[in-house]
Amino acid sequence: MFFKCENFQKVGAFKFRGALNAISNLSDKAKANGVVTHSSGNHAQALSLAAYIFDIPAYIVMPNNAPDVKVNAVKEYGGKISFCKPILEARESTAKQLLEKYNATFIHPYDNDFIIAGQGTCGKEFIEQLNLEPDILMAPIGGGGLLSGTVISVKALKKNTKVFGAEPEMADDAFRSFKAGKIIPQINPQTIADGLLTSVGERNFKILNKHLDKILLCSEKSILVAMKLIFENLKIVVEPSAAVSLACIIDNPDEFKNNTVGLILSGGNLDISKFNWEMK
Amino acid sequence: MFFKCENFQKVGAFKFRGALNAISNLSDKAKANGVVTHSSGNHAQALSLAAYIFDIPAYIVMPNNAPDVKVNAVKEYGGKISFCKPILEARESTAKQLLEKYNATFIHPYDNDFIIAGQGTCGKEFIEQLNLEPDILMAPIGGGGLLSGTVISVKALKKNTKVFGAEPEMADDAFRSFKAGKIIPQINPQTIADGLLTSVGERNFKILNKHLDKILLCSEKSILVAMKLIFENLKIVVEPSAAVSLACIIDNPDEFKNNTVGLILSGGNLDISKFNWEMK
Repeated sequence: MFFKCENFQKVGAFKFRGALNAISNLSDKAKANGVVTHSSGNHAQALSLAAYIFDIPAYIVMPNNAPDVKVNAVKEYGGKISFCKPILEARESTAKQLLEKYNATFIHPYDNDFIIAGQGTCGKEFIEQLNLEPDILMAPIGGGGLLSGTVISVKALKKNTKVFGAEPEMADDAFRSFKAGKIIPQINPQTIADGLLTSVGERNFKILNKHLDKILLCSEKSILVAMKLIFENLKIVVEPSAAVSLACIIDNPDEFKNNTVGLILSGGNLDISKFNWEMK
Repeated sequence: MFFKCENFQKVGAFKFRGALNAISNLSDKAKANGVVTHSSGNHAQALSLAAYIFDIPAYIVMPNNAPDVKVNAVKEYGGKISFCKPILEARESTAKQLLEKYNATFIHPYDNDFIIAGQGTCGKEFIEQLNLEPDILMAPIGGGGLLSGTVISVKALKKNTKVFGAEPEMADDAFRSFKAGKIIPQINPQTIADGLLTSVGERNFKILNKHLDKILLCSEKSILVAMKLIFENLKIVVEPSAAVSLACIIDNPDEFKNNTVGLILSGGNLDISKFNWEMK
């Protein structure tokens, strides 16, 4: 097994790749007006830092119940936060107000071609860094930004490498959608892999439906076991979502027998002293 | 600040350097008879792996109340464990029996010239890897194997670099010994930095007394704060002893103002899911 350590990426997650690429590709005028997104996770931090690098404003809509640690991270990277009620309509209407007020550009966390292309640089780098052709390359799937970018770049470079998605059983919309050949949205997902709660995006699904080889599932228990293995053997910090690929190997060992496998460890943003290692 | 990540070293700690060097320097006949030590920590694992590499036996004396995780780690590296009562006399008499039975060589965890020289390769590598002359280089002190090796190699390569020792207030025998100019043994130390409970060794003290610039102290709370900073910012796993250098910076900021500092993160062997982040 080989691990691509996106926990060491800027802002501690692969999301910085897409955010930087999305802003890079704006016109000078659009850049000057700034960017908007609604997110309380790694995308918010990534967009804030990317905007900071281009010296443009990033307007981040966050629910008013977002944890302090996430609010502070966005502030530290220079994001301008607008709080709203923690419901989808409030997020969307607040974002819309900001877009109109500043004539800014909305940057979706995954359903955006430049975001997908940016996340795809992770798989490209991984293949270039490996001195071999892996049999299988695997990344977690939430909205599908990372996985859709990965499948494009990896299949372009190594056509014999299979690309697998890794998903928690408790948030298995991509697995069911891939099987059905159409998007089946996720309703009320309950997983410790909090980066993978969202449903797969339209652009992302179209790419995955065409190029992806397989989606595997894992239990919540195996996510914790995988996190512990990574902490205690690799000595690195990952967030639960990043451990989902290894958890899928634990739960589907026959899929990997005698295979060389590349795993993308997607991020390492974990409030370590508050993390609950017990199964709920 | 620059960090030398000995948590990524084989067996997860710098101890492998000394153990490998100590066995390398045995005669062929002494090698064949094997090595003995009493330790329940990283030295036991390091000596077991080093012996495994030379295909010779490592006899490890451990107290019968050693935690399973440490016993299993030694077993995994091929060490042959003899359990004894958890008192010093039992450890010493059991080790003596093994030494006589096998005509083996005792390898002290720190009070041994080859161990000191082996640990000294860490500071040498660190200096070679840095593209600058650090103002201060700092390592934790328990028995003093790492720090005495470090001060020799660093002072030989960079005579303007100051070398500091870092020690918990709750196990401050080296601080008091350094001040007094003679060894004052530690009595009943109580620190979460479980790798630093031991008193400084004779050979080690002689070297430190001559070459070391300073020993700084830190509180237990700052050790936890430093661990959290390392986990959440560097995204790497360290054991409490490894966080003591950063904790000493937190508690003695004036010592480091405008200085470039190299810190040796001595190890990463932590039972993560059982670690208690609350102050006792």
